[in-house]
Amino acid sequence: MKGDKNVDIQALKDMANKLRIDSIVATNASKSGHPTSCASMAEIMSVLFFHTMRYKVSAPRDPSADRFILSKGHAAPILYAAWAEAGLFPVDELKNLRKLDSDLEGHPTPRLSFVDVGTGSLGQGLAVAAGMAYVGKYFDQAPYRVYCLVGDGEAAEGSIWESLHFASHYKLDNLVVIFDINRLGQSEPTSLQHQMDVYDARLKAFGLNSIVVDGHDVSELVKAFDEAASVTGRPTAILAKTYKGRGFPGIEDAENWHGKALGAEGEKIIKHLQSQIKNTSLSLKPRAPLAEAPAVHIADISLSSPPSYKKGELVATRLAYGTALKKIADTNMRVIALDGDTKNSTFSDKLRNAYPERYVECFIAEQNLVGVATGAACRDRTVAFVSTFAAFFTRTFDQIRMGAISQSNINLAGSHCGVSIGEDGPSQMGLEDLAMFRAVPTATVFYPSDAVSTERAVELAANTRGICYIRTSRPNTAIIYNNDEVFKVGQAKIVRQSGKDRVLLVGAGVTLHEALAAAAALQKEGIEARVMDPFTVKPLDEAAVQKHAKAVGGRVVVVEDHYQAGGLGEAVMSALAMERDVVVKHIFVRGVPRSGPPTALLDMFGLSAPHITAAAKALLNA
Amino acid sequence: MKGDKNVDIQALKDMANKLRIDSIVATNASKSGHPTSCASMAEIMSVLFFHTMRYKVSAPRDPSADRFILSKGHAAPILYAAWAEAGLFPVDELKNLRKLDSDLEGHPTPRLSFVDVGTGSLGQGLAVAAGMAYVGKYFDQAPYRVYCLVGDGEAAEGSIWESLHFASHYKLDNLVVIFDINRLGQSEPTSLQHQMDVYDARLKAFGLNSIVVDGHDVSELVKAFDEAASVTGRPTAILAKTYKGRGFPGIEDAENWHGKALGAEGEKIIKHLQSQIKNTSLSLKPRAPLAEAPAVHIADISLSSPPSYKKGELVATRLAYGTALKKIADTNMRVIALDGDTKNSTFSDKLRNAYPERYVECFIAEQNLVGVATGAACRDRTVAFVSTFAAFFTRTFDQIRMGAISQSNINLAGSHCGVSIGEDGPSQMGLEDLAMFRAVPTATVFYPSDAVSTERAVELAANTRGICYIRTSRPNTAIIYNNDEVFKVGQAKIVRQSGKDRVLLVGAGVTLHEALAAAAALQKEGIEARVMDPFTVKPLDEAAVQKHAKAVGGRVVVVEDHYQAGGLGEAVMSALAMERDVVVKHIFVRGVPRSGPPTALLDMFGLSAPHITAAAKALLNA
Repeated sequence: MKGDKNVDIQALKDMANKLRIDSIVATNASKSGHPTSCASMAEIMSVLFFHTMRYKVSAPRDPSADRFILSKGHAAPILYAAWAEAGLFPVDELKNLRKLDSDLEGHPTPRLSFVDVGTGSLGQGLAVAAGMAYVGKYFDQAPYRVYCLVGDGEAAEGSIWESLHFASHYKLDNLVVIFDINRLGQSEPTSLQHQMDVYDARLKAFGLNSIVVDGHDVSELVKAFDEAASVTGRPTAILAKTYKGRGFPGIEDAENWHGKALGAEGEKIIKHLQSQIKNTSLSLKPRAPLAEAPAVHIADISLSSPPSYKKGELVATRLAYGTALKKIADTNMRVIALDGDTKNSTFSDKLRNAYPERYVECFIAEQNLVGVATGAACRDRTVAFVSTFAAFFTRTFDQIRMGAISQSNINLAGSHCGVSIGEDGPSQMGLEDLAMFRAVPTATVFYPSDAVSTERAVELAANTRGICYIRTSRPNTAIIYNNDEVFKVGQAKIVRQSGKDRVLLVGAGVTLHEALAAAAALQKEGIEARVMDPFTVKPLDEAAVQKHAKAVGGRVVVVEDHYQAGGLGEAVMSALAMERDVVVKHIFVRGVPRSGPPTALLDMFGLSAPHITAAAKALLNA
Repeated sequence: MKGDKNVDIQALKDMANKLRIDSIVATNASKSGHPTSCASMAEIMSVLFFHTMRYKVSAPRDPSADRFILSKGHAAPILYAAWAEAGLFPVDELKNLRKLDSDLEGHPTPRLSFVDVGTGSLGQGLAVAAGMAYVGKYFDQAPYRVYCLVGDGEAAEGSIWESLHFASHYKLDNLVVIFDINRLGQSEPTSLQHQMDVYDARLKAFGLNSIVVDGHDVSELVKAFDEAASVTGRPTAILAKTYKGRGFPGIEDAENWHGKALGAEGEKIIKHLQSQIKNTSLSLKPRAPLAEAPAVHIADISLSSPPSYKKGELVATRLAYGTALKKIADTNMRVIALDGDTKNSTFSDKLRNAYPERYVECFIAEQNLVGVATGAACRDRTVAFVSTFAAFFTRTFDQIRMGAISQSNINLAGSHCGVSIGEDGPSQMGLEDLAMFRAVPTATVFYPSDAVSTERAVELAANTRGICYIRTSRPNTAIIYNNDEVFKVGQAKIVRQSGKDRVLLVGAGVTLHEALAAAAALQKEGIEARVMDPFTVKPLDEAAVQKHAKAVGGRVVVVEDHYQAGGLGEAVMSALAMERDVVVKHIFVRGVPRSGPPTALLDMFGLSAPHITAAAKALLNA
């Protein structure tokens, strides 16, 4: 390719050094950041942004454009520099890096028009890229390509290997993973340093078209990216041997320079780099996308038919989840389901059975599962529903946490919550999922208590931006709502009340049914209880909680199949924190549960109706 | 090895079938469980437990014994069967599987004497095994060996590949990983099915001595385990090609039999298996351990010297963490530190600098990091301290959750909590870590506010069983305690009070200092405020919260550098839930933060002293 007359190799070299200079200037202005981590990938960025990739500076998130994910998010300055040099904004703005009033943050976030997802927690970018590539190849069937730059430090994250396996299994030949193998981590050399043969063997064994290159040789990079574009049936990995701080005399390949601005050294180094540039007035423009990606419509999604149950009928909410998922898929071609080999337990297989091409089996690799969904949802390409056991979403808390930063619009359904799953035991019980999702700022948390409300939760989730979480239960529970009941996010339901109520019982899922049984038992003792179904735990219907708590004399019992912290009980307490004269008795799972029959466990861990009845009476006698 | 006269191959074959029968009997009695997942590994278990492994039935967790970790925990029945057949308890007890009053749970937990850690969330066992092997090789320097059985479904988990890399990097030749490659997952075939060559290439590329065997050929297994024992410098992977439901006619290698008891089919199959057994009165005994592991003492750990600071001196609590870690390592040889390439930020490098052999660099692979520590702490072999950024422990929530089930005794220190880290931005800010750790039933959560209390937190954590979490901050904060101040778990400190206090301010870390500044500002306006440092968020000193809240007239302001759910604020609300006449104003981080100077962010997100002052005044005027 050195002889390719269409490629101005020197211009790409010059651009690499310009990007290095920009990175130094930006991090020197902010007095912090990672210039050496930028320097190792300068040639890669130059070739990608000014030779290989097809995109529009005028519309950075155009669905037709090639995607670029900077998985090693700490190299943000060179990403910003590339877009500035491409003309999106003045290069001088790079000096606002990390300032409070600038969106040029320490790590990239979608506050910037050219960033699809936040990165900075390492090892997550490739799953997102794989999700984008899956959509491009199978749903959009468009020629755009996806590039993901991974640091060698983060290549130690298992999530990277989950995603590599996924990408090769699904033959994502529109995906290119570039490993920036610069030998040095934050606190010491990486474990593999420059053992390019080991990387190569691993990538080949994982089924990728692996190419080892000198990551500072623009010609080699051009050739490798061109080769990647011609390979079919598998993704390409470009293993770039690079040096941290490349081109920074005295700093290149030296330890103890991670995450440090160059300070006074910077000026000298900038002069040195400038001396390498042949054409100082260089301006390069990217190539335009090859073809338009199809227009898609992902708003106003509805069930193809309303819920159809009989009151009192016993239906597990996890089953209703599957039913509803298939129903919204009936009405919108872009509704997709992803699961981690639990589809016959979560009932996501109902979508798969109807629309196999819209189901993505992600096998037992939950981090990649959520990451792929995140990528699939980017640029509003799909409405992604991810399911697994509620407990196993804990495996993906970092992905979910980053999903808030990424402004991700994904839907997660966790089945098998709480002790009510029974004999499988505590490892399979989701008992901390509400705490996890409530702690996500962009999350909406649905906890439906019957099949009717579950179907509506799915429909609402499909139309609600941010991260939607739907908590479903394993046991069959009675239908309590009419099929035409209307549900809204943040709107609780009072499912039992009278004019003489003296205590408010709040439950969800199995515990709502226990609360209803407790209210019936209390009535026999002459005590009227009001029962609330919150429907969404986040946002909780705080006004309703306050109103009904006060209406019953300030006595509230909250019961949940979850540990104490962060769940429904503490959500209710937060709603009532500024109310004087209200007490909340919180019933929750104390200590690690064990195997046993569901009803026996509900009783053993104090969640069953008799315990609720006793708690209510104790409040009344206090 | 087929000619080895010392190995009774037929006896091992017979034992495999006995284990199969036991697994069917147990799961038929419980009407649930995973007999087909047991059947694929029957020969592996027979050879391991009755030929290869050295252990004592009389003392299953003897530190000198070989370890066995069943990573695919759903195959619990065959693990229980192996111990029963070895003589630990009557085989007939297997019929109590999954019953409420039996410790033979659906997935293994350390309620059983022969289980080191709970398994059942897939892909976690190998990290634990690697931690045990690291301790055996480098700390105990004892000949015991570690065996870990991994399912092929869970081999898709990235955590497995993190651990494989760790094991090969540290040359853990005392570790054997057996992959039970039975081709079938829960809901469909695994992605690699029986592509043994792909597994083999991957394992070899990851640096293991990989051996492909027929997993149902006892002779091949005996030979492979013997070879593993003779290989030095790298761990061995035994890739066993097996069939799910092996030996169950009509079920072997068939789909849709995952996690199902055989029911009526079982009786026929048992008869068939019995017909394969040559010696029905078979009884095999394991070999004894080769040598005693060294006696170790991990109790009564203390700082080698008391804290030594001046009041008002500015010291980051993360720095004090490192100082204290080195001090407790001075006094106990079994204190070790593990980190994920952040040691120069968390200051765990202080231990490494003093005692390099007791520092374990785990690189950027947090799931394996926590798993290795879990393994290192098993059988009370070490006092393990794990550090990384607080935010990155979210990557390990599933491991931490399982750590509660595992009765793990590990210490985790999360640095860089909250918006006060500043310019690096939200991806690096721990804002949900308190919610996460408070939701762990066995956790103790320290949130020290100065260097003196941080040193004592480290000392207390070393002596506190369960999962201890220490939240440390990046900025320098003032010393507020005398060097001889005594701290206890669950004991709050009142750091400012008078007889005229009208509001209680509760803060921790940076927000305690903001609360103190607010109290000083309030005093200037004639308002006396009491200030509480909770020291531990879990257990929270509920009695103190209640007492002081009432003493000031029921007005509480809680301020934390954390999101709303599950943190200090809701912990305080839980403590006050049953108190009438108390209001709590909760100040927390609303929405996803951004990059900026720490003090500017504290102010922007409402955590700084002026906001606390205003909140207190609003309460007084309510």
